[in-house]
Amino acid sequence: MKAIIIIAGSEFVQGRKQDKNGLFIAKNLFERGVDVQGIIISPDSHYELLNYIKFALDRADLVFISGGLGPTTDDNTRMAVSEAIGVPLIYNEEWLNKLKTYYKSNNVEITEERKSMAKIPYGSAIIENPVGRAVGFIKVLDDIKKAVVALPGVPSEMEPMFYKALEMLNINEKKRYTKLFRVFGIKELDLNYLLNDMKDLSYNFSPKGIDVFLYDTTLESFKEKEKKIKDRLGTFIYAEDNLEMEEVVGKLLRENKKTVATAESSTGGLIVSRLVNVPGSSGYVLGGIVSYVNEVKINLLKVNEEDIKNFGAVSEPVAKQMVEGVRNLINSDLAVSDTGIAGPTGESPNKPLGLHYIGFTDGKETKVYKEIYQGSRNDVRLYISQFALNLIRLYLISNS
Amino acid sequence: MKAIIIIAGSEFVQGRKQDKNGLFIAKNLFERGVDVQGIIISPDSHYELLNYIKFALDRADLVFISGGLGPTTDDNTRMAVSEAIGVPLIYNEEWLNKLKTYYKSNNVEITEERKSMAKIPYGSAIIENPVGRAVGFIKVLDDIKKAVVALPGVPSEMEPMFYKALEMLNINEKKRYTKLFRVFGIKELDLNYLLNDMKDLSYNFSPKGIDVFLYDTTLESFKEKEKKIKDRLGTFIYAEDNLEMEEVVGKLLRENKKTVATAESSTGGLIVSRLVNVPGSSGYVLGGIVSYVNEVKINLLKVNEEDIKNFGAVSEPVAKQMVEGVRNLINSDLAVSDTGIAGPTGESPNKPLGLHYIGFTDGKETKVYKEIYQGSRNDVRLYISQFALNLIRLYLISNS
Repeated sequence: MKAIIIIAGSEFVQGRKQDKNGLFIAKNLFERGVDVQGIIISPDSHYELLNYIKFALDRADLVFISGGLGPTTDDNTRMAVSEAIGVPLIYNEEWLNKLKTYYKSNNVEITEERKSMAKIPYGSAIIENPVGRAVGFIKVLDDIKKAVVALPGVPSEMEPMFYKALEMLNINEKKRYTKLFRVFGIKELDLNYLLNDMKDLSYNFSPKGIDVFLYDTTLESFKEKEKKIKDRLGTFIYAEDNLEMEEVVGKLLRENKKTVATAESSTGGLIVSRLVNVPGSSGYVLGGIVSYVNEVKINLLKVNEEDIKNFGAVSEPVAKQMVEGVRNLINSDLAVSDTGIAGPTGESPNKPLGLHYIGFTDGKETKVYKEIYQGSRNDVRLYISQFALNLIRLYLISNS
Repeated sequence: MKAIIIIAGSEFVQGRKQDKNGLFIAKNLFERGVDVQGIIISPDSHYELLNYIKFALDRADLVFISGGLGPTTDDNTRMAVSEAIGVPLIYNEEWLNKLKTYYKSNNVEITEERKSMAKIPYGSAIIENPVGRAVGFIKVLDDIKKAVVALPGVPSEMEPMFYKALEMLNINEKKRYTKLFRVFGIKELDLNYLLNDMKDLSYNFSPKGIDVFLYDTTLESFKEKEKKIKDRLGTFIYAEDNLEMEEVVGKLLRENKKTVATAESSTGGLIVSRLVNVPGSSGYVLGGIVSYVNEVKINLLKVNEEDIKNFGAVSEPVAKQMVEGVRNLINSDLAVSDTGIAGPTGESPNKPLGLHYIGFTDGKETKVYKEIYQGSRNDVRLYISQFALNLIRLYLISNS
């Protein structure tokens, strides 16, 4: 089955806003075995929309349209579909009554424009909107065995209505098996070497690591490949599907009943902030010190002033004393620290941009890792925060 | 002038990756007075691309294609353009020689596939690739007064080549004047009231505040509207164009030679992390304490244990003592603090989800603000961090 997705919205083609509905719909269709032949972002105008809907109906079995169902003059999807398929718009009485009740209870006049949100092409099935006022619809064109699905543009309305539409169209079953393996701590070349006999993989590289995307059309072969990847990559895989490192680390900390504290210089609070992002983190994140200047390192974390003079703030002994200092200060089980040069300035002959020392301690043993990562300031900080969180993860999986 | 943008890449229509080139090209064309009639995301396949290129050439004066210029079998843009316009591909000798030199010096064999990256439709002008190997091209179709522009998909290659193409097409001049006003601390209703006589404005709402987007086609009327907005919104405007709050605050701190420290509970390091995001922030960010648990509030920030017992950790006196505590501890000029309930759990009868106390001190006077913001955990934290940063901004503009 082939589909084309149409996104209606002048804000997108005028460069004011990034559309994300296209990606959401495409991903879900792909997983259900539907081949998406295009995501077309159209201006609001009736004429353009009409052209794209006709084009899409010529080429695809399913046309999904998101946006343009509201009450303003910029909302032209209902009319454009009606004209493209040659079927008049009628009121859906059930939805119209809901609108009347709604506006009455809010003391708002129900204008013709507002009433139009209950209009659908004759013979369509409505898709109820669980959040907003605009009703969606599916019009099946029996003679040519095609269907048009119209959904609102607001994601919180569109998403549940899209799933409902899949149910109604009976294409709810997953036909493609997909999995995302999120990998950290392995070089691209080594990863290629480990996986070079495997097809149907695609890769995405970022400061957070490498995302390995697997898909297959049969469950058996999918399971086989999944196992291969897991066996070969082992603990390099920090998460599966869309979990983030901080969620994985949070889960491990909770399971192992360990608490954590951070002493951050270069990352400036990014590590602790990512940990606190996770609901329930108050159970294991005790706190952190951002010691962005030497005085705070010395006074609060008890880093030796002489060591800073002799080795510099970006050095192995400073990372070590920072992590031990914060653990003592905050009384956590585990602690991480970092000190480094995120850029764009601050390098010296012996200390290149991107140089970092990352410390980890469990109170018995302290380890310091040296890393050089080149990139924009924020990429560097993201990478270093990922590295530090990964140290906690690796410790917990080998000590639990 | 009308344009259609085509993005080639199966990763986008299979839902694996978000395209961002479409938005970039659309925004730049819009500002130069070009009407973008669509952004079409196509699979890699020759057949689909060909269809879309033909469709676009039928309807638009300019067709921009991004992606599909590389050496793999998935790269079909050159062939598809060639077929769509009925002009054969030839080698551009100049670029071919560059490729030969490049691969020779890297000891890599120059295969037919790699050579294909120097192919362009007969009669095209090349757009040199300043970063990678794939050459771009502009083919002007004199008889129908249209043009096709082919660019790579990698943003760091595409962007400079796109600007070069605009120059070559002589549509470099800005014809639409646009400005983004970023506003914080004003309610939507009040903003509407202040700006309700102004057209050509669009709005975007987020936890960071309200973005007001102005555009106009004549400089004079643009300037007039710009002035009106500035006069009416005054210090509610925290930034113009794409500056972030932390950049504005950073600039003010540097100009006023003031330093800052943070004591964060609910935001968990987000405030300090945002401040440290800005290059050069080591000049004014001294550090911060993330006191996610009461022990750290009591032991490190010297918050009175009795007050926590009597009023709770989320209370006015705790926010006050936190901000004064961190200022004393870190010896900064200014400090901010927060304590609150970001959710999704933690509310009590007197303390709803989203309740926060935000403290600010300059050492002479401490103020605590009560805010309730409802939304997802991360939205709440983002809003509170924005609120705290805004306190620093407002203090510095009224005390400088």
